[in-house]
Amino acid sequence: MSLAAFQTQPGVAAQPPAETTGFVFNHTMLRVKDAAASLAFYTGVLGFRLIDLRHFPDADFSLYFLALLPAGTQIPEGDDARRVWMAGIPGVLELTHNHGTETQAGAVYHDGNSDPRGFGHICVSVPDIQAACKRFDALQVPYQKRLEDGRMKHLAFIKDPDGYWVEIISNTPIA
Amino acid sequence: MSLAAFQTQPGVAAQPPAETTGFVFNHTMLRVKDAAASLAFYTGVLGFRLIDLRHFPDADFSLYFLALLPAGTQIPEGDDARRVWMAGIPGVLELTHNHGTETQAGAVYHDGNSDPRGFGHICVSVPDIQAACKRFDALQVPYQKRLEDGRMKHLAFIKDPDGYWVEIISNTPIA
Repeated sequence: MSLAAFQTQPGVAAQPPAETTGFVFNHTMLRVKDAAASLAFYTGVLGFRLIDLRHFPDADFSLYFLALLPAGTQIPEGDDARRVWMAGIPGVLELTHNHGTETQAGAVYHDGNSDPRGFGHICVSVPDIQAACKRFDALQVPYQKRLEDGRMKHLAFIKDPDGYWVEIISNTPIA
Repeated sequence: MSLAAFQTQPGVAAQPPAETTGFVFNHTMLRVKDAAASLAFYTGVLGFRLIDLRHFPDADFSLYFLALLPAGTQIPEGDDARRVWMAGIPGVLELTHNHGTETQAGAVYHDGNSDPRGFGHICVSVPDIQAACKRFDALQVPYQKRLEDGRMKHLAFIKDPDGYWVEIISNTPIA
């Protein structure tokens, strides 16, 4: 289907309203049981960087903001400048940690893919999906769907420490 | 807290692994009851553009991919080129519509903010949050939290047609 045809789908505005100029889809927030486990996964396995951290001791929670930044990205040093910069970029992941959940037995949060459903997954795209999945294997990352499972051989789903699904797709043409 | 201090938080990798070069946090997927209603909200209220659409008639669902693109962004016309381009950008929103849910009475999906909790919200940042919220008022967009509610006067939460929370923050310095 052509791009022009998309703009005539039911409900679709023909043009973005002028008043939305400068709007950015900035972040997605997920609650996590164990901040250290999630930070290890998102930074150590997927390459995100921690770009902001806010503790709310009175309310017993902390917020961690992460982003997958292109190599060479300069992150502003000062808190104020960094927060304005961070609010203006797309693709930020906010993790909310309610203090104490890390000591609970078993899963604390719901991944959205069984009843009651809603949120489904986040997705990280990679230049070499075969190499990425081999590395996930070596790191013993759990899968929801391996590359070779099912009909869709060009995508995989791994699971983060809370069981949230992370789709893995290619961002380069597949030969 | 300094940026350097973030990199020594428990769990955080000191450096992004070299193997993650080129990884992109591409998209977030939400299930929606009524595709036309959601498309009207995301394109007409928030300024997203529909950049891909995939119908799976055998399995009775459709996928809609949207993005908030900087003014002047050139979207590749051809399906293959556009899909590679789309996989390489951050900040895509994927909406999954299971055919027929739009005729069900009441809410179909769970917003993640009551038990069982998990996903919390997505966030759109805007250059002028006062103007944005006045416009949402004029468009009769429902709020979870208005700018003036509570202690956090610099952010709001609106609700999409399924009740998913959409945080609204400023991406410019607040005077």
